[in-house]
Amino acid sequence: MAGSPLITTARNRSVSSARRLGKRAFRKTDRRFLVEGPTGVTEALAEPGALLELFVTPDATERHADLVGRAEASGVVVHTVLSDVMDELAQTVTPQGLIGVAAHRDVSLEAVVGLQPLLVAVLANVRDPGNAGTVVRVADAAGADAVIFTDASVDPYNPKCVRSSAGSVFHLPFVVGVTAADTVAALRSAGLSVIAAAGASSLALDSADLSHPAAWVFGNEAWGLPEELVALADVSVRVPIHGRAESLNLATAAAVCLYASASAQRAPGGCRGSGG
Amino acid sequence: MAGSPLITTARNRSVSSARRLGKRAFRKTDRRFLVEGPTGVTEALAEPGALLELFVTPDATERHADLVGRAEASGVVVHTVLSDVMDELAQTVTPQGLIGVAAHRDVSLEAVVGLQPLLVAVLANVRDPGNAGTVVRVADAAGADAVIFTDASVDPYNPKCVRSSAGSVFHLPFVVGVTAADTVAALRSAGLSVIAAAGASSLALDSADLSHPAAWVFGNEAWGLPEELVALADVSVRVPIHGRAESLNLATAAAVCLYASASAQRAPGGCRGSGG
Repeated sequence: MAGSPLITTARNRSVSSARRLGKRAFRKTDRRFLVEGPTGVTEALAEPGALLELFVTPDATERHADLVGRAEASGVVVHTVLSDVMDELAQTVTPQGLIGVAAHRDVSLEAVVGLQPLLVAVLANVRDPGNAGTVVRVADAAGADAVIFTDASVDPYNPKCVRSSAGSVFHLPFVVGVTAADTVAALRSAGLSVIAAAGASSLALDSADLSHPAAWVFGNEAWGLPEELVALADVSVRVPIHGRAESLNLATAAAVCLYASASAQRAPGGCRGSGG
Repeated sequence: MAGSPLITTARNRSVSSARRLGKRAFRKTDRRFLVEGPTGVTEALAEPGALLELFVTPDATERHADLVGRAEASGVVVHTVLSDVMDELAQTVTPQGLIGVAAHRDVSLEAVVGLQPLLVAVLANVRDPGNAGTVVRVADAAGADAVIFTDASVDPYNPKCVRSSAGSVFHLPFVVGVTAADTVAALRSAGLSVIAAAGASSLALDSADLSHPAAWVFGNEAWGLPEELVALADVSVRVPIHGRAESLNLATAAAVCLYASASAQRAPGGCRGSGG
């Protein structure tokens, strides 16, 4: 808006720098990632220091005048770009005219332990970014304190993951690139029970005592948790299948498990006391 | 296999007849729909009379020899097609070499009432086929007795919906093209409480009595349930948001609600007795 010249080509330096963040290797080097659409950009802006740059089309500048104004007022560098340039930048079919660049925000395992967490979600070997982002959103909604992506999992900064988290990547602390073994050891030292979500477990969710602080470990959508990860956990629990479905998908299973813990922890006798 | 000539062109009559089922209008006329991939085809085959035809590539005929053999033995018309022809037929990028044609299987509201259902999911104005299919899968897993698609909802026979149901469209009875008002009246007459899942409700899930037979009404992912639908229900309930997420997505919210009912109905004093 005020004074920013219209960028008309994707060869523009700021655009090229942002565009390369579509690739994991460049995200890692630059420690930056893309946030598409008004929901993600709004949530990024709400976290001090998270949003670094904002690309907007002239149309979106009008449609989201308040958001763009607040970004400028917060010191975010705002670039106005032609919608063709936006299309080059965007990973989605409908970028809605707004793409932000945000600073990486993963924290260490030690930082998560320092939060004295009561509920943590661990994603082990989760490969689909849309599923991973949905689990981050669910973990946020269920009041989890952190999400941990073990080293064989998808990059949480993948644009699809960011998008399907609906802004929750800016709400929760998360950890990347740690081993499952280190994760389990750290969370156990923080006083959490480590629960493997495993369809083959003999213990059904309704029979498990979930009143204590817990870390849930979720595996790959297609092949679940490998034996060695189940063995690392203190207990394994299955979501009961009452009908004829073979299984639940990852995000819906995580929703049921995390909400079961959230509820039990807030019930009388639970670790968050009653009322919550 | 045995004697079926290889189909090398999408202009083949059987292929054309199947291909047009990608369009809702033709599905409606022909009362048939497409089922892609081994999971869906296996589940279709398990329901007597559900699977009518099967298209397979030579590769898939080898990979799924048992499945194809069982289909032939059950009287399913098996067509062997070149993989180019399969690509023309398939709605997915990776059709996995197998596409079935199944008969429509929706039932009437009266038929659902006749089942004396204890748990039903109602989708009102749900437009995304992937979400709708995931809810069918969740409803199946949670032991729901039926799913009802009110008239403004997506077509359950949409290939994306069928695919994301992971075979559950063949497990549960479902109803299409009925009004929300007729649905609520019928379910209430069957003794079910009608519960609107509404983010703005003052009653949180953990405080609701879910021990009784219930029908959950879920609205459109983006704008939820309109006032008039909430007003039709006996009670409205929200999934509590303990963290900072604005909401849950449709499928994860449905998972939490349906499993909460499944659990309460099976607890001591619940309508399914204890133990379940």
